[in-house]
Amino acid sequence: MGALPRELVDEALAAGKARREEILGVRYLRFRDDWHHVPRGTVVVEGRVVWGYPRIGRILRLETGLAEQFDGPFQAEEKIDGYNVRIVRLGGRALAFTRGGFLCPFTTDRLPDLMDTAFLEAEPERVVCAEVAGPENPYLVGHPPFIGEDVRLFVFDLMRLDRAEFEAPDRRARLVREAGLPAAPVLGRYTAADWERLRALLRRLDAEGREGIVLKALAPPWRRAKYVTASSAVADVRVSVAALRQLPPEYFTNRILRLVLFLDEEGMEADPALERALGAAFIEGLQAAIAQFRAEHRVAHRFRCRFRERAYAEAFLALQQRLAGHGRVRALRLEREGAWEVLEFEKLDPEMTGLLGHVLRGGVVYD
Amino acid sequence: MGALPRELVDEALAAGKARREEILGVRYLRFRDDWHHVPRGTVVVEGRVVWGYPRIGRILRLETGLAEQFDGPFQAEEKIDGYNVRIVRLGGRALAFTRGGFLCPFTTDRLPDLMDTAFLEAEPERVVCAEVAGPENPYLVGHPPFIGEDVRLFVFDLMRLDRAEFEAPDRRARLVREAGLPAAPVLGRYTAADWERLRALLRRLDAEGREGIVLKALAPPWRRAKYVTASSAVADVRVSVAALRQLPPEYFTNRILRLVLFLDEEGMEADPALERALGAAFIEGLQAAIAQFRAEHRVAHRFRCRFRERAYAEAFLALQQRLAGHGRVRALRLEREGAWEVLEFEKLDPEMTGLLGHVLRGGVVYD
Repeated sequence: MGALPRELVDEALAAGKARREEILGVRYLRFRDDWHHVPRGTVVVEGRVVWGYPRIGRILRLETGLAEQFDGPFQAEEKIDGYNVRIVRLGGRALAFTRGGFLCPFTTDRLPDLMDTAFLEAEPERVVCAEVAGPENPYLVGHPPFIGEDVRLFVFDLMRLDRAEFEAPDRRARLVREAGLPAAPVLGRYTAADWERLRALLRRLDAEGREGIVLKALAPPWRRAKYVTASSAVADVRVSVAALRQLPPEYFTNRILRLVLFLDEEGMEADPALERALGAAFIEGLQAAIAQFRAEHRVAHRFRCRFRERAYAEAFLALQQRLAGHGRVRALRLEREGAWEVLEFEKLDPEMTGLLGHVLRGGVVYD
Repeated sequence: MGALPRELVDEALAAGKARREEILGVRYLRFRDDWHHVPRGTVVVEGRVVWGYPRIGRILRLETGLAEQFDGPFQAEEKIDGYNVRIVRLGGRALAFTRGGFLCPFTTDRLPDLMDTAFLEAEPERVVCAEVAGPENPYLVGHPPFIGEDVRLFVFDLMRLDRAEFEAPDRRARLVREAGLPAAPVLGRYTAADWERLRALLRRLDAEGREGIVLKALAPPWRRAKYVTASSAVADVRVSVAALRQLPPEYFTNRILRLVLFLDEEGMEADPALERALGAAFIEGLQAAIAQFRAEHRVAHRFRCRFRERAYAEAFLALQQRLAGHGRVRALRLEREGAWEVLEFEKLDPEMTGLLGHVLRGGVVYD
């Protein structure tokens, strides 16, 4: 099994930490949790290992965080508000796996629209790490303001099959450029001493409603960190508040802390427009949920996305239905529209539906 | 042991659900958790039982909630934003116990200023249930806007020793009035059909920054419910956000839901001033915590309160230090000022102190 000893895989299977999957005829094995040195989301397919994408620590302070995390030059890349995929070519097909290690029928189906997959034919040992984002993505409610329709893909790392390391940023940039792959924008090179330049950059990204940056060292041990804008915190609250009973409640308090530390570092005064935007994000998001409950007797989020092939749309739906649990994901429409099979589906929020049903009917809560 | 069988008390002690306490020379037993039919906060002192004050369910909707909870007339009383005490006269002294069943040295010391304790000499079987509120209370950061200094006491129920039942609202009101005790304001009598009148009342309370109402049925089975204003939700966020790592995170999301349902029922449109107030409550509360951390290298809340007797101030401090755990409560000053022993103390927030220290120094978080 490539770089993973068979005994380790067997133990992980026995412990329930790894699981066999079959999606669209692809049989593979997925690590559901961290297991010894193997991260969650690691996949074994055709005897090769697609290593899990590691978590990147967040700094909440540029001035001290850069100095603490980086002792040499690093590169800033735009952080795109989408979902993370790893793309490989195995068994004669290009396949996209989600962060959690599921073969993603949506991304796999749409790969020819998102990138030139000839790269993986020329470089079959590669793992392309990318963010997929846009209003017609099937996973996330939010999306970057600069993507008006459908989805786009942004490559931000290259790995190799059976290996956990990333290609160095310079070499990765050259390979991606030469292959004509779409890349996450590189926003310059810095050292920790340049924190005021980065602060100015972040202020611009914030004003444009962009999410933030990922910083990658240009020399071993290749350290990384991320940092996000105040506006991304407000946007997260707005799109997520209707799901407040499903999310860990720290979700909201963490974002408010990021926002306030961002303002503090940027030397921004208490701004009535921002205060109002944060309050409105909470209030309007919940008002929309109440209005939906009143009209439809449930709170659900609607997604729309485009597939090339109907079979992939069906496989996507089946997977979402399995993952979300009984009855929570429901197809509303799957129809040919020109070149596309357009899928519309909704994801029920049973917690918010139950809570609003209870309290609007006059029930009591003990909190 | 009065109304509690000795075996039940012994079992509760053995199970760690009850505990013996001694504060200011008063030896008593306190139920730390619900145990069979005995609620948390129940106290046994001088062989008599002071029954725990029961939780009151919250409705989030007047129109349906009143109809669901009340099938006859009920009374609305103002809900005062303070802490709950039960006051008894036992062993020749008037004693005040907190909701959790601790003898409160502060309230006990100040009782002669807060109410005419001759009532308990004339009616020694009584348990007076009251809220104590004001800017100089030693427990809560917030307080009602209409109390400018020190604390005041508001009686809202009468019980009897060894009994779990409340005096009926009518009889209680008469007894309280005849004894000249300060009472929580009674805001009228209603039936569920009067919900629009109550809605108008709540709108006025909201505009005045008051917390809300407690509703009490006027006939058996004496049902109760509470309902709070949008402004109380914003006030709670403002005074609590610096402690966001110590509070259950649902604390915030519950209050936002209450606020939005209040607006919805009141037919209030999205209001820029309220949106801004909610955003500002989050932002300014955390900004204050950051400013304090920067000046003092810790986040702590400062309390100031007045005692009659120094020994009670010392007993109060000792109890707070024991309950808060090692080093979290620190006396800043205990000095005679005219008629008062003025205590100033601070309560450290170790979670927020640790988090701000970590991230301001440039540490990373994984969230």
